[in-house]
Amino acid sequence: MKKIRVVVAGYGNVGRGVLAALKNNPDMEAVGVVSRNPDRVKQSFDEVPVMQIADTDAWISALQPDVAILCGGSKDDLPVQGPALAAKINTVDSFDNHSRIPEYFAAMDEAAKTAGNISVISTGWDPGIFSMERVVANAFLPGSRAYGFYGLGEKGGLSMGHSDALRTIPGVKDARQYTHAVTESIEKVRTGENPEFTAGDMHTRECFVVLEEGADAEKIAETIRTMPGYFAPYKTEIHFVSQEFLNEKCAGFPHDGLVVAAGTTGNGNPARVEYRCQWGSNPEATANVLVAHARAAVRLADEGQKGAFTILDIPPAYFSLHSKEELLAKFM
Amino acid sequence: MKKIRVVVAGYGNVGRGVLAALKNNPDMEAVGVVSRNPDRVKQSFDEVPVMQIADTDAWISALQPDVAILCGGSKDDLPVQGPALAAKINTVDSFDNHSRIPEYFAAMDEAAKTAGNISVISTGWDPGIFSMERVVANAFLPGSRAYGFYGLGEKGGLSMGHSDALRTIPGVKDARQYTHAVTESIEKVRTGENPEFTAGDMHTRECFVVLEEGADAEKIAETIRTMPGYFAPYKTEIHFVSQEFLNEKCAGFPHDGLVVAAGTTGNGNPARVEYRCQWGSNPEATANVLVAHARAAVRLADEGQKGAFTILDIPPAYFSLHSKEELLAKFM
Repeated sequence: MKKIRVVVAGYGNVGRGVLAALKNNPDMEAVGVVSRNPDRVKQSFDEVPVMQIADTDAWISALQPDVAILCGGSKDDLPVQGPALAAKINTVDSFDNHSRIPEYFAAMDEAAKTAGNISVISTGWDPGIFSMERVVANAFLPGSRAYGFYGLGEKGGLSMGHSDALRTIPGVKDARQYTHAVTESIEKVRTGENPEFTAGDMHTRECFVVLEEGADAEKIAETIRTMPGYFAPYKTEIHFVSQEFLNEKCAGFPHDGLVVAAGTTGNGNPARVEYRCQWGSNPEATANVLVAHARAAVRLADEGQKGAFTILDIPPAYFSLHSKEELLAKFM
Repeated sequence: MKKIRVVVAGYGNVGRGVLAALKNNPDMEAVGVVSRNPDRVKQSFDEVPVMQIADTDAWISALQPDVAILCGGSKDDLPVQGPALAAKINTVDSFDNHSRIPEYFAAMDEAAKTAGNISVISTGWDPGIFSMERVVANAFLPGSRAYGFYGLGEKGGLSMGHSDALRTIPGVKDARQYTHAVTESIEKVRTGENPEFTAGDMHTRECFVVLEEGADAEKIAETIRTMPGYFAPYKTEIHFVSQEFLNEKCAGFPHDGLVVAAGTTGNGNPARVEYRCQWGSNPEATANVLVAHARAAVRLADEGQKGAFTILDIPPAYFSLHSKEELLAKFM
């Protein structure tokens, strides 16, 4: 069997997760890593060639990849990198700025269609699996609303975006933010009443903050609690801790979530569906989903399709290593 | 908007559920019911024309349906009815004899392809939603096995097949069978050890049996406990009850289930996904899923595709009432 040749674009947490995930998928192989700073990557990684991402034609020619998995950030990297690479090669990415997905889709669709490539965008677990679960819940339970909750476990889910936001505050040396779901609100959804929630009704935020020497804790706490969008709408708990505490107790990237929809079928019989996921490593979870979508991207390309796709546009069988016959016999 | 015209083939529990579900889907309408015994159906239902199912050309010509939802049984009805109707019209069915799905798929594929129709087979919640969840769990968590459990609630899930099996025993006047999941086995799966189970490790069976006058309870209990396939492999609890008890306490068709898969991502970080559904009415749940697949069948047909499809072959967006733009903006 000819393996699917994958280039990993970006060597951050997600990129390293993709490299690890590819080893668990026997029909695929990493053929290279491309990065803005290949020399730095090479210091810690030399399993496959590492090349300069800007030299697109050079690495495509040297590595002959079937697909590139774009592991850059949604804020600055993907809006530029995505369309540029979609014009050259099949791509998969985890663009996760929900409100900008329509415009990103349009840009990727135009670039990919013009070049005759496939670009699967915005996949991972949310957007991604959760998007799919929201759509099928709504389709199979018309009239129900699908709600997303995050951080249901005791420790909550680590939010990279909110941790980064804390670290931008002057006087903050390091920080981690855990999101917690409001249990009572989940129960309310489960009753089938399709409640109206504000953001603060659904989640609370817990911050572990290491201060720089001489920083004003009270002022920083006030800055956190009033930060628009990130913390102002939420009940926010703040712990000032030592760097040692943060390193020991707040290591890793655990996250988890729930999609839940409740309503009725027929003449008022209660009905409820829930999708729950728990990840020891959030970036590795995203990586696993990206890799399965890279398989789908290559299949779509082999069929002669082109343009941008999301998980909503792809038959589930395309994600699977297994043949149609195996799926019919063993998975149906 | 032109509504999708649906014929409901069969007026049992699922057929009545489909008629109710269509009223919750504003883009679709029931244009007729076809049955082996239209006169009997007409005694309780006259909202749309009721016609003889065997007069296929007549009802297709009179009702001008876009798709027929086949609500007959998997044992005797669908193996014959399915291919015959697939040769005439787009169809959707809930054929649920798992071990025979490959051969049923082949028969439906041939009939539908020859006629240029679409046949979506074997959908509902299992096979159906659960099949999709098994495939994506396996694709996103390579190496994990997806397990299905049923009857997690206190009362368990009502199994029609096992209730029917009880009623075939001489001396049994009426009966209901509830399936219960073995909680400890679910917990074992959640640990990520991908355990090997026998059927009896995963579920127990609880029977409520009304005896005919003079029947030998002990002998019947023995017959139940040793019935191959249905009860012999399971721990089985038997309650002999009055018809009044059965009518009052065992009414309705509640069922529920769980697909659960656990494993690791990357370098050994724990990962777990679970899909849980709970239905006040099992046949209405099946009906809701069938109706969304009828929408997908018509879209596939409008694209000029043909042949048999399962939920694994259909992009999730096709099930949705919402436009591509709405899905990108509100569901991703």
